[in-house]
Amino acid sequence: MTKSLSVPSEKSGLPPGSLIHVGDTLESVTRISVVDYSKETIEEQKIQTIEEILNYKDSDTVTWVIIEGLTNVELVERLGTIFGIHQLVLEDILNTHQRPKFEEYDDHLYIVLKRLMLEDEQFSVSYEQISLVVLNNFVLVFKEKKDDLFQPVLKRIRTSKGRLRKLGSDYLAYAILDTIVDQNFILIDSLDDAITSLEDDLLTTEPTQDTLNTIQKLKREIISIRRHVSPIRELVSEIIRSESELINEKTLIYLRDVYDHAIRVVASIESYRDILSGLLDIYISSVSNKMNEVMKVLTVFASIFIPLTFLTGIYGMNFEHMPELKWKWAYPGLWIVFITIPIVLLIYFKRKKWL
Amino acid sequence: MTKSLSVPSEKSGLPPGSLIHVGDTLESVTRISVVDYSKETIEEQKIQTIEEILNYKDSDTVTWVIIEGLTNVELVERLGTIFGIHQLVLEDILNTHQRPKFEEYDDHLYIVLKRLMLEDEQFSVSYEQISLVVLNNFVLVFKEKKDDLFQPVLKRIRTSKGRLRKLGSDYLAYAILDTIVDQNFILIDSLDDAITSLEDDLLTTEPTQDTLNTIQKLKREIISIRRHVSPIRELVSEIIRSESELINEKTLIYLRDVYDHAIRVVASIESYRDILSGLLDIYISSVSNKMNEVMKVLTVFASIFIPLTFLTGIYGMNFEHMPELKWKWAYPGLWIVFITIPIVLLIYFKRKKWL
Amino acid sequence: MTKSLSVPSEKSGLPPGSLIHVGDTLESVTRISVVDYSKETIEEQKIQTIEEILNYKDSDTVTWVIIEGLTNVELVERLGTIFGIHQLVLEDILNTHQRPKFEEYDDHLYIVLKRLMLEDEQFSVSYEQISLVVLNNFVLVFKEKKDDLFQPVLKRIRTSKGRLRKLGSDYLAYAILDTIVDQNFILIDSLDDAITSLEDDLLTTEPTQDTLNTIQKLKREIISIRRHVSPIRELVSEIIRSESELINEKTLIYLRDVYDHAIRVVASIESYRDILSGLLDIYISSVSNKMNEVMKVLTVFASIFIPLTFLTGIYGMNFEHMPELKWKWAYPGLWIVFITIPIVLLIYFKRKKWL
Amino acid sequence: MTKSLSVPSEKSGLPPGSLIHVGDTLESVTRISVVDYSKETIEEQKIQTIEEILNYKDSDTVTWVIIEGLTNVELVERLGTIFGIHQLVLEDILNTHQRPKFEEYDDHLYIVLKRLMLEDEQFSVSYEQISLVVLNNFVLVFKEKKDDLFQPVLKRIRTSKGRLRKLGSDYLAYAILDTIVDQNFILIDSLDDAITSLEDDLLTTEPTQDTLNTIQKLKREIISIRRHVSPIRELVSEIIRSESELINEKTLIYLRDVYDHAIRVVASIESYRDILSGLLDIYISSVSNKMNEVMKVLTVFASIFIPLTFLTGIYGMNFEHMPELKWKWAYPGLWIVFITIPIVLLIYFKRKKWL
Amino acid sequence: MTKSLSVPSEKSGLPPGSLIHVGDTLESVTRISVVDYSKETIEEQKIQTIEEILNYKDSDTVTWVIIEGLTNVELVERLGTIFGIHQLVLEDILNTHQRPKFEEYDDHLYIVLKRLMLEDEQFSVSYEQISLVVLNNFVLVFKEKKDDLFQPVLKRIRTSKGRLRKLGSDYLAYAILDTIVDQNFILIDSLDDAITSLEDDLLTTEPTQDTLNTIQKLKREIISIRRHVSPIRELVSEIIRSESELINEKTLIYLRDVYDHAIRVVASIESYRDILSGLLDIYISSVSNKMNEVMKVLTVFASIFIPLTFLTGIYGMNFEHMPELKWKWAYPGLWIVFITIPIVLLIYFKRKKWL
Repeated sequence: MTKSLSVPSEKSGLPPGSLIHVGDTLESVTRISVVDYSKETIEEQKIQTIEEILNYKDSDTVTWVIIEGLTNVELVERLGTIFGIHQLVLEDILNTHQRPKFEEYDDHLYIVLKRLMLEDEQFSVSYEQISLVVLNNFVLVFKEKKDDLFQPVLKRIRTSKGRLRKLGSDYLAYAILDTIVDQNFILIDSLDDAITSLEDDLLTTEPTQDTLNTIQKLKREIISIRRHVSPIRELVSEIIRSESELINEKTLIYLRDVYDHAIRVVASIESYRDILSGLLDIYISSVSNKMNEVMKVLTVFASIFIPLTFLTGIYGMNFEHMPELKWKWAYPGLWIVFITIPIVLLIYFKRKKWL
Repeated sequence: MTKSLSVPSEKSGLPPGSLIHVGDTLESVTRISVVDYSKETIEEQKIQTIEEILNYKDSDTVTWVIIEGLTNVELVERLGTIFGIHQLVLEDILNTHQRPKFEEYDDHLYIVLKRLMLEDEQFSVSYEQISLVVLNNFVLVFKEKKDDLFQPVLKRIRTSKGRLRKLGSDYLAYAILDTIVDQNFILIDSLDDAITSLEDDLLTTEPTQDTLNTIQKLKREIISIRRHVSPIRELVSEIIRSESELINEKTLIYLRDVYDHAIRVVASIESYRDILSGLLDIYISSVSNKMNEVMKVLTVFASIFIPLTFLTGIYGMNFEHMPELKWKWAYPGLWIVFITIPIVLLIYFKRKKWL
Repeated sequence: MTKSLSVPSEKSGLPPGSLIHVGDTLESVTRISVVDYSKETIEEQKIQTIEEILNYKDSDTVTWVIIEGLTNVELVERLGTIFGIHQLVLEDILNTHQRPKFEEYDDHLYIVLKRLMLEDEQFSVSYEQISLVVLNNFVLVFKEKKDDLFQPVLKRIRTSKGRLRKLGSDYLAYAILDTIVDQNFILIDSLDDAITSLEDDLLTTEPTQDTLNTIQKLKREIISIRRHVSPIRELVSEIIRSESELINEKTLIYLRDVYDHAIRVVASIESYRDILSGLLDIYISSVSNKMNEVMKVLTVFASIFIPLTFLTGIYGMNFEHMPELKWKWAYPGLWIVFITIPIVLLIYFKRKKWL
Repeated sequence: MTKSLSVPSEKSGLPPGSLIHVGDTLESVTRISVVDYSKETIEEQKIQTIEEILNYKDSDTVTWVIIEGLTNVELVERLGTIFGIHQLVLEDILNTHQRPKFEEYDDHLYIVLKRLMLEDEQFSVSYEQISLVVLNNFVLVFKEKKDDLFQPVLKRIRTSKGRLRKLGSDYLAYAILDTIVDQNFILIDSLDDAITSLEDDLLTTEPTQDTLNTIQKLKREIISIRRHVSPIRELVSEIIRSESELINEKTLIYLRDVYDHAIRVVASIESYRDILSGLLDIYISSVSNKMNEVMKVLTVFASIFIPLTFLTGIYGMNFEHMPELKWKWAYPGLWIVFITIPIVLLIYFKRKKWL
Repeated sequence: MTKSLSVPSEKSGLPPGSLIHVGDTLESVTRISVVDYSKETIEEQKIQTIEEILNYKDSDTVTWVIIEGLTNVELVERLGTIFGIHQLVLEDILNTHQRPKFEEYDDHLYIVLKRLMLEDEQFSVSYEQISLVVLNNFVLVFKEKKDDLFQPVLKRIRTSKGRLRKLGSDYLAYAILDTIVDQNFILIDSLDDAITSLEDDLLTTEPTQDTLNTIQKLKREIISIRRHVSPIRELVSEIIRSESELINEKTLIYLRDVYDHAIRVVASIESYRDILSGLLDIYISSVSNKMNEVMKVLTVFASIFIPLTFLTGIYGMNFEHMPELKWKWAYPGLWIVFITIPIVLLIYFKRKKWL
C-alpha cells in the first residue's frame, strides 16, 4: 500500500501544553546517556534516573544529555522542571509531527528537525525527529531511536583536544546539527542513483506500468523529503540571525557552513523534482511512440492484404457470366497483380518512413 | 451537481455598513451562551436577552459570549452598540463570505476565519464562519451553527485551575483559535486517506471515468480548502506582529505555536495538491498504456489472420485454369503455410515485446 | 471571431500630454451631472456648460461631478484648467486603455480603474474605464457610458442623513470605489455558474469540440479579467499607504474593507483559473477514455470475426482433394467451433475488463 | 531555419574596457545629426567630424546628438574623451548584446534599451539597441540603424514652443524613452492579431502541422520579446528612484507615465504567453478529437461488415452436407439478416453518440 | 549511461574543518605559478616549494598565486597557515562540490565558483571549481586543472601598462571573475546551436525516440548548468554590497559589469529552459499528428475494401436459389457498384480532409 503522508490529528482538541507522546513509537525503552567535558576532562556514562543530571548542573563543564526514545513522558517533564524549559517546548519534543523550526527563549534555545533515513533498496525514506535544547553549558538531545548517529561527534570529543573540547555548548549544538544535515547527502546520493537508473531504463527499454509506478513513488518521496528538509534552511538562517547570548559569535561562521550545506541539499532536491517531472513527460511520449509503431504495423498489414482479399473475393463469386474465369492467363495475370500491389504499397510506406 | 465555489453577490450595491445576514442560513434560532470566569469563580449560563450580558460588563472576570446562529441581526446590532464595535465589523460578522482576516481597532480586535467540516464519506468539505471579537475581559464568538466545537475549551475552563483560568481574554482567544486550527488536522487526515486510496486504485486497477471524476472532485476541494485555509497563516502572523495592548506578551509564544500549526496545515495541503496533479498525469499515462495494450491485441489478431484469409481467398477463386487445385498435396501443403505464418509472426511480436 | 485582447497603439508616437480620445467610442454625447451636498443641504442637477461648476468651487459643500461619455475633449481640458489637474491625468482620463492605478498629486488624487460588465448569456465580458479625480470638497468621475451604476450611492446621499452626508470627498470616493469593486462579485457569480455547468457537462456527457471551445473562451476571459482586476488590489493598497492630506484617517478603515473585497475577487479568479486548467486536463483524459472505448469495441469485433472468417475461407477453397468436405459431420462440427471461439474470446476480454 | 536566440561570445576573454564593435553590422556608414535648441533658438545639422560638437559644449542650450551606425569605433572613443564618459559605458554602447539597464555616473547617466521592430508579415521581430547618454545640457543617442524613429520628437522640438523646448536634457531623454517604449504597442497589436487569427484557425479548422509550427514560432518570439522588454520596467523604475541631480523633479511625473506604459506592455506579453500556451493544449486536444473521430468511422465500418462477411463466408463453403444451401428461402432469409445486423449496430452506435 | 547529478557524500560524518580532498581528481600533480607585479615591475615564475612565496609577502607589489591541482592537501594547509586563512575556507577549497558563494573574513575574502566547459560535440558540460582568496596585495587562485584559462589576464598584465598594473588585488580578482563568467557565453552559444538544430529537426522531420532522448539530455544539462550558474549572480551582488576594505570603490563599477553579464547568462538559460519545455510539447503533438495520419490511411483502406469484400462474399455463396447468379448483367453491374462505392467514399473522406 502507498505510504501515507498523514499528519495525524491524534492531539487535536487537547489543551495546549498537555504532555503526551504523539506519533509512532519507535523505541519503547528510553536510554539516557550523558557526556560531560571541558578542555581537560571528559566523562561518559549511561544514567538511569534523571536526578543524576543534577550533579552536572552547576559545574562549568559542557554537559551533553542524549535521550533516546520518547515514550517516557514523565522523564521529559522532570527535565523540563529541572532546566526551566517552556511547557510548549516539552510538548513539541513529544509530538513527532513537528515542522523543523527554531525557537528562542530567555535562557534556552529550541531546535527541532528531521533526520532522513533510507529504509531499504526500494527507495523508501523514513524520518526521525530530533530535538535540541541548548542551554548555557548544557545541550539536551531528544531522539526517537537508539542508533550510532552521533558516534562521529562523540569520537571527536573523546580524541581531539581541539576546538570542540575548547568551545561551549553552542559549538556542540553546531556539531550535532552539522552531523544531521550532512546525513542528507547520503540520501541524496541514493536518490540520484534511483533517478539515474530510472532514466536509463526509460530511454532504452519499453515503458511499462512499472516504470510509471516507480516515477510516482519517487515523486511522492521527493514531495515528502522536500517538506521535511526545506524548512531546515530557514531554521539555520534564523539561528544565525538570532541575537541570543547563548550563541557565540565565533560559532556563527560554522553555522554559515551548515546553512550552505542545507541550501545545497534543497537545491539538489529541487533539481531532482524537475528531472522527475521531465521523466513523466518522457514516459508519456514513449508510450505514444510505441503506440504509433503498433499502429503502423497494423496499417501496413491491413492496407496490403485487405485489397488483395477483395480481389480474390471477386473471382470467388459464382456468377454464370464471368468471362474472365475461362481466360487461360487470368489466374497467372492475377498473381502479377497480387505481387505488384504489395510492392507499390511497401514503397509508398517506405517513403512515408513507416518501415 | 458539482458544488459551486460561488462568492455570492447578494449584497453588491448596498451601502457599506448596512447590517443584513448574507450567506446560507445554517441555523434559524440563535442561542447565546455565556461563560464568566476568574481565577476563583466560574459561571455558565444560556441567556435569552442580550441585556443580561450587561451584568458582566464592568466586572474584572473574563466573559466569553458564544452566539450560535447568525440570523438575528438585531442581536448583533445591540451587541455592537453595547461594546462599541465598529459598524464594518458587525457587517463582516453577518456576511459569511469573509476571507480569514485580522483587524485591529482601538479597543477591540476582530478575527474572522473558517472552520472546516467533513460532510460525509464522499470527501465533501463544508465551511463554517467563526468570528471573534476580543475586548478587554470579553471574548465574543459568533458561529453559524450549534455544535460541540468548543467543548474541549469549556472543559479546560471548568476543570483546570491552571493557565486558562489565570490568564486574560487574549489567552482565551488563543485557546479558541488553537481549537479551530487543530480541527483542520482531522480534515487533512481524511484527505490523506482519500488521496492514498485513490493512488492505490490508480496504480493497481484499470483507470475508469470514475477515477477521473474523483480526481477532479478532490482537486476542486483542495483548491477550495486552500483558499479558506491559507490566509489563516497570515492572519495569525498579523496578530503576533500587532502591537495591541489587548494581547499580553506571554500569549505571543502560544500564538507562535498556532502559527506553526497553520504553516503545517498549509504545507500539507500544498503537498496534496502536488500529489493530486501528479495523479492526473499518472491517470493519463495509464489510459495510454491500456490503449496501447488494446492496440497490440488488435494488431496481433489482424496481422495473423488477414494474410491467411487472403490465401484461402486465392484458392476459393473459380478460375478454370488453376493447376494447383488439382495437385494432391496442395491442400495439406497449404495447411503447413497456415501454421508457419502465425508462428513466424508470433515470434516476431514476441521479440517486439508485444506479447 | 475571437475577441481581441488588443492594446491599441493609436497614440504611439504622439507628444505626451496631447489630449485626444483613445479607445472605442461608447457614447457620443457627453452628459454632466452634478450632486452637491452637505450635512444639511442637497442639490442635484444636469448641467450643459462646464462653467456652471464654478458656482460650487468655493463653497464648503462636497460636490460630485459625473461626466458620462469621453468624446468631448474640450470639456475635459476646461475641467483640467478650472481645477488645476495635471496634463498627464487629463490624457489618461481620455485614453481608455489604462491599467488600474493610483496617482497622488499636490492637491488632487487620480484613481483609474475598470468596471466589468457581463455582455450576454455567452459569458463575454466588456470593460468600462472609470476615472476619479479627488480634490478637496470635489470628486470628478469620468465614465465611458451612461448607466445606473451610481444609483445606490446617489440614493444613500439623498435619503440617509448618515455618514455619507457628514463626511468629506474622500468618503464619497470610497463609496464610489466600493460600488465598482462590488460589481465584480456579480460577474464572479456568473463565472462560477459558467464553470460549474461546464464541469458538469464534462463529467457526465461526451466531450465535444464545443466543450473545448468553451474552455478556451472562458480561459481567455479569465486571463483578461485578471489583467484588469488584479491591479485594483495594489491600487487600493497604495491609497491606504498614501499620506495625502486629502484622505481622512477615518476613511482608511473603510478603504481596508474595499481592499479585502479586492483580495477576495482576485483570489476567486485565481481559483477559477486553477479549476479551468484542471478542466482541460479532464477534457483530454475524457477524450482518451472514449478513444480507448472505441478501440476496445473495434478490437473485440475484429478479434472474434477475423479468425472465424479465415475458417470459412478454408472450406470455401476449391481443391479437389479436401477430404473434410465430404465428411457428414464436418459442417455441424465447424459450427461448434464457430460458437466456441467467440465464447472463449469473450471470456478473455471480460477478464481484461474490456467489456 | 529557426532564428537563433544567440548571445554571441565574440568578446569573451578580451580585457574589459576594450572598444570593439560586437554584434551584427546593420549600418556601415555612421551618420551624426545634431539638434541644438533653447526656449528661443533651434539649430539642426548633419556633421562630419566629431570636433564640430565642441562648439556646443559650453553653451546653455540643450544639444541632442544622434549617432546612427555603430561601426565607427574611433568616433565613439573621441566622444568618450570629449564628454568624460566612463570606459565601460563606451564598451557597452558598442556591444549590441546589452540587457536594458540604467547606470548612474558622477556627471552622466547611461540608459541602454532595445527597440522592437516587426520584420514582415510572418511575425518575426528584430531588435535595435539604442543607448542614451544624458549629461547636463547634452543627450547623446547611439542607434544601430538610420531611420525615422525620432521624427515625432524632432517635430515637437521644431514646432511647439511648449514644454520640450523649455525644459532640460532630462525631459528630452524622457521624450526619447517614451517614443521607444510606445513603439512596442504597435508590435503588441500585431502580436494580438497573429494570436487571434491563430486561435480562430484552431477552433474552426483542422489542426495541421503548420498550426503547430506557428504556435512554436510565436512562443519563441514571445520568450525573446519578454527577455528584451521586461527589464525596461525595472530600468525606468531605477531612473525614477535615482537621486541624480541630472534629473529634475518635474520630469519624474512623466517618467512615471513611461513606467506605466512599460508595465502595460509587459502585462500584455504575459497574457499572450498564457493564451499561447493554452493554444497548444487546445491543439493537442483537437488532434485527439480528430483521431477519435477517425477511429469511430473505422470501428463503425469494420464492426458492421466484418460479421456480415463472416456470414457470407459460411455459405461460401463447399461442404457436401450443408442442408441450408438447398432451402428455397435461405438466401432471401439471409438478406434479412444482412439488413438487420447493420440496423441494430447503427442504433447501438447512435446511442453511444458515435454517429 | 546518463551522467549523474550526484552530490557525493564522501565527507558526511567527518569533523568540520578536517582537510581532505573531496571530489574527482582531475590533476594528480600540483603546479604553482606566481605572478608578481607593480606599476613598474613584473616577475613570473613557477615555484616548487610553498616557502618561496614568503619572499613576496611583505612587498607592496600585487602577487598572484595560481595553484593548479587540488590533491596536495599539505600545500593548501601550509598556505592557510602562512596567510592566516580560516580553516573552513581551506576545507571548502579542497571540497569540489561547493555551491558558488562569497564569504567575507576579517583580512581576506573567499570566492568560490564553477567554470563551465563543453566536453565534446554531444553537448555534455563538465565543471571545474575555482576558488579565489583575496588578501591585501595577494590573490590566491585554486583550480582543479591545468589549462590556459587565465592567459588573457596574464597577457594584459604583461603588455598593458594600463589599469590592471596600476590597481590592486581587488581589480585583479575582478579580472579573474570576469574571465570565468564570460566563458559561459561560449557555452551558451553552443547550447543555442544545439537547441536550434533540435528545433529545426522537430519541425521538419519525423519525430523519433532519438529526438526525445536529445530533449531529455539537454533538459538535464540545463537543470545542471542553472544550478551551477545562477548562484553566481547572487555571489557578485554580495561582493558589491560587501563593505570590506579589501575592495576599492573604483572596482565596484567593474563588478557591476560582471553582475550584468551574470544576469544575462542566467536570463538566457531560463529562456532556453522555456524553449526546451516547449519543444517537448511540440514533440508530443507531432507524434499525435503522425499517429492521426497513420490512422487515416488505415481507415480509408479498411472502409473502402471491407464493404466490397462483403459484396463479393455474397455472390460467392453456394445457395441453389440465388437468381442473380444467372442474370447476364449481374457481374458487370456489380463492377459498377465496385467502382461507385470507393468513389463515393473517397469524396466523403476528401470532404473530411482526410486525404
